[in-house]
Amino acid sequence: MPDSIPANSVGLVSPQTLHIETPITLECGQALPAYDLVFETHGKLNQSTSNAILICHALSGDHHVAGYHAMEDKKPGWWDNVIGPGKAIDTNHFFVVCLNNLGGCNGSTGPTSINPDTNTPYGPDFPIVTVNDWVKSQAILADNLNIQQWAAVVGGSLGGMQAMQWAISLPERLKHVLIIAAAPKLSAQNIAFNEVARTAIKADPEFHEGYYASHDTLPRKGLGLARMLGHITYLSDEAMGEKFGRELRHDSINYGFDVEFQIESYLRYQSESFAEQFDANTYLLMTKALDYFDPASAFEGDFAQAVSKIQAKCLVISFTTDWRFSPERSQEIVNALLSENKEVTYAEIEATQGHDAFLLPISRYHDIFTAYMKKVASEVIPS
Amino acid sequence: MPDSIPANSVGLVSPQTLHIETPITLECGQALPAYDLVFETHGKLNQSTSNAILICHALSGDHHVAGYHAMEDKKPGWWDNVIGPGKAIDTNHFFVVCLNNLGGCNGSTGPTSINPDTNTPYGPDFPIVTVNDWVKSQAILADNLNIQQWAAVVGGSLGGMQAMQWAISLPERLKHVLIIAAAPKLSAQNIAFNEVARTAIKADPEFHEGYYASHDTLPRKGLGLARMLGHITYLSDEAMGEKFGRELRHDSINYGFDVEFQIESYLRYQSESFAEQFDANTYLLMTKALDYFDPASAFEGDFAQAVSKIQAKCLVISFTTDWRFSPERSQEIVNALLSENKEVTYAEIEATQGHDAFLLPISRYHDIFTAYMKKVASEVIPS
Repeated sequence: MPDSIPANSVGLVSPQTLHIETPITLECGQALPAYDLVFETHGKLNQSTSNAILICHALSGDHHVAGYHAMEDKKPGWWDNVIGPGKAIDTNHFFVVCLNNLGGCNGSTGPTSINPDTNTPYGPDFPIVTVNDWVKSQAILADNLNIQQWAAVVGGSLGGMQAMQWAISLPERLKHVLIIAAAPKLSAQNIAFNEVARTAIKADPEFHEGYYASHDTLPRKGLGLARMLGHITYLSDEAMGEKFGRELRHDSINYGFDVEFQIESYLRYQSESFAEQFDANTYLLMTKALDYFDPASAFEGDFAQAVSKIQAKCLVISFTTDWRFSPERSQEIVNALLSENKEVTYAEIEATQGHDAFLLPISRYHDIFTAYMKKVASEVIPS
Repeated sequence: MPDSIPANSVGLVSPQTLHIETPITLECGQALPAYDLVFETHGKLNQSTSNAILICHALSGDHHVAGYHAMEDKKPGWWDNVIGPGKAIDTNHFFVVCLNNLGGCNGSTGPTSINPDTNTPYGPDFPIVTVNDWVKSQAILADNLNIQQWAAVVGGSLGGMQAMQWAISLPERLKHVLIIAAAPKLSAQNIAFNEVARTAIKADPEFHEGYYASHDTLPRKGLGLARMLGHITYLSDEAMGEKFGRELRHDSINYGFDVEFQIESYLRYQSESFAEQFDANTYLLMTKALDYFDPASAFEGDFAQAVSKIQAKCLVISFTTDWRFSPERSQEIVNALLSENKEVTYAEIEATQGHDAFLLPISRYHDIFTAYMKKVASEVIPS
């Protein structure tokens, strides 16, 4: 292992691509004739295929969940603090799989992929994808990897919603489900924030109704705005206060519309760099997947009925200052599970960082995560 | 009084204009050589001029605080439920003054006014105005109305900040101050939301660096976005949930980017109508006035020192689900006042409506408001 990569890292990793020629019909009614799923794996699948863990990513995440793609990488994968040898999801014991979801922009088929009907990128013609569609395509990946049953399906935020949907839709295919910083469905306020983000993207004249690729441009301002707004909802008021307070960018107030406070500078920088990297049509799709997520809807709105299908044991985690999906929303999940006599562990973690906490190495959070995964290992791995 | 105007309304009212030829130097260092202040009054000023109440408006408010401008008006002034005969601020006893602030877009000199230097609208060249500037110009209006001391200065949100600044800057000129749904200064999160709003306006290609008037256009999309976002912060998650929940606009889900949920439809409608009525440059100025408000800054950051100047008796009111300026922010004001041995009454009102609650006829809120103003009347009005 080279010097600059930490010893408890999974090290250098390479993504793999699964190309599927069998058409997939999506919840919206449209079908993709063929598609790619890009994924990464860490650790080794054991002979009984009992040690596989599926990680589901959130809104702007992707398959690169741990380790490094190249020695030059400044940052490891997005959940590197959780996945690796000796970490909460210990790659000495588990085989970890993480894929870029359909509709994504990091290798799996999505709006930036070529539409075989037109030989140009799908762009806005890529169909709406839902959490159900992702579970369906993730199950196809599992089939191809010869994984009949996951030891656990794990996710935070929109990833937690996928994990929950797995447990409801394919109850026999997972032994444990870890639902972190999620909710049974979006509130009107959650949808409202998504709608503002979408409106910002669509209002950008460089959006060109989604066909920005053929105009050789990007809706940078609109996507940047969407990201700025997202960022505010990921952080708590407290975390922003601690990090930036009312610190001025310069020594004194300038009475003008240039950056005055550090928080403005931070948001501008974050949004500009994001807008160069992420695809706006994918961003739109991800917000719609969030809006539409509502497993109760298949059970006449009865969420308890939905979770009654679950066979997996459940760990639900929330964070005290998360106001995007507050602890109360996790408690709705827990209460429904308890009402259906499911086995559920719940932890509300004291954390100042808001929704982003689920990505951060907070010790009580990681302690619980580690302890739970040790229990999973002891159950699923033959000694 | 015509049939269609309620008996407890102040009835038909006409705005007045005070034209000032004496230049005013603003906190930013720039001066306006002359300016107009548009205002409305309700009730009668008594002979001892002891019964005058100043109402300060919030971000998108104006001087039209009560009654109707015309029989055809669908809605009365923005605080009609508080001001009128027999209401909390009883116009049988009090003389109520409300003006459009400098920088506004409803008659007082602001970005839509003609810049005497260029004979075209000021537009983005209108100088930055602050809460201190408003207090200064409001005091000039008071001088012109022959009001040496207000019985009370009253405001909610940004209006509450002006009321607080009055009590700090001109302590002898008010006997009471009512600070409703306000804060001692904005948090990083508050500033962040303002920055997103400003970015949305400035990103609109119809903004033309603020010179949209000379291009015969309006930055409707940008201002609409800013308003949509504002709207989310004015309502509580709870209030939005009660009002809209996840109600669909049509009978079933359409899997597309048209309006799917009622909340989206509501936000789109609200933002479109606002963007036709309000001036974008004014909106930018108002958000900056909010950002810059920080009375402690003149006292080396010591807020208690700032409020130590206050001679007025204080009523501070907050609302439980207000997350824009939460009860904790009002408690900071109360605690500072108590630490300086000021006379302060504090009420935290149970209300589901979020920040908007300060505009609504919530009975416990109005009961306290009414009782307090009766006390004010008994103190200031000769029997």
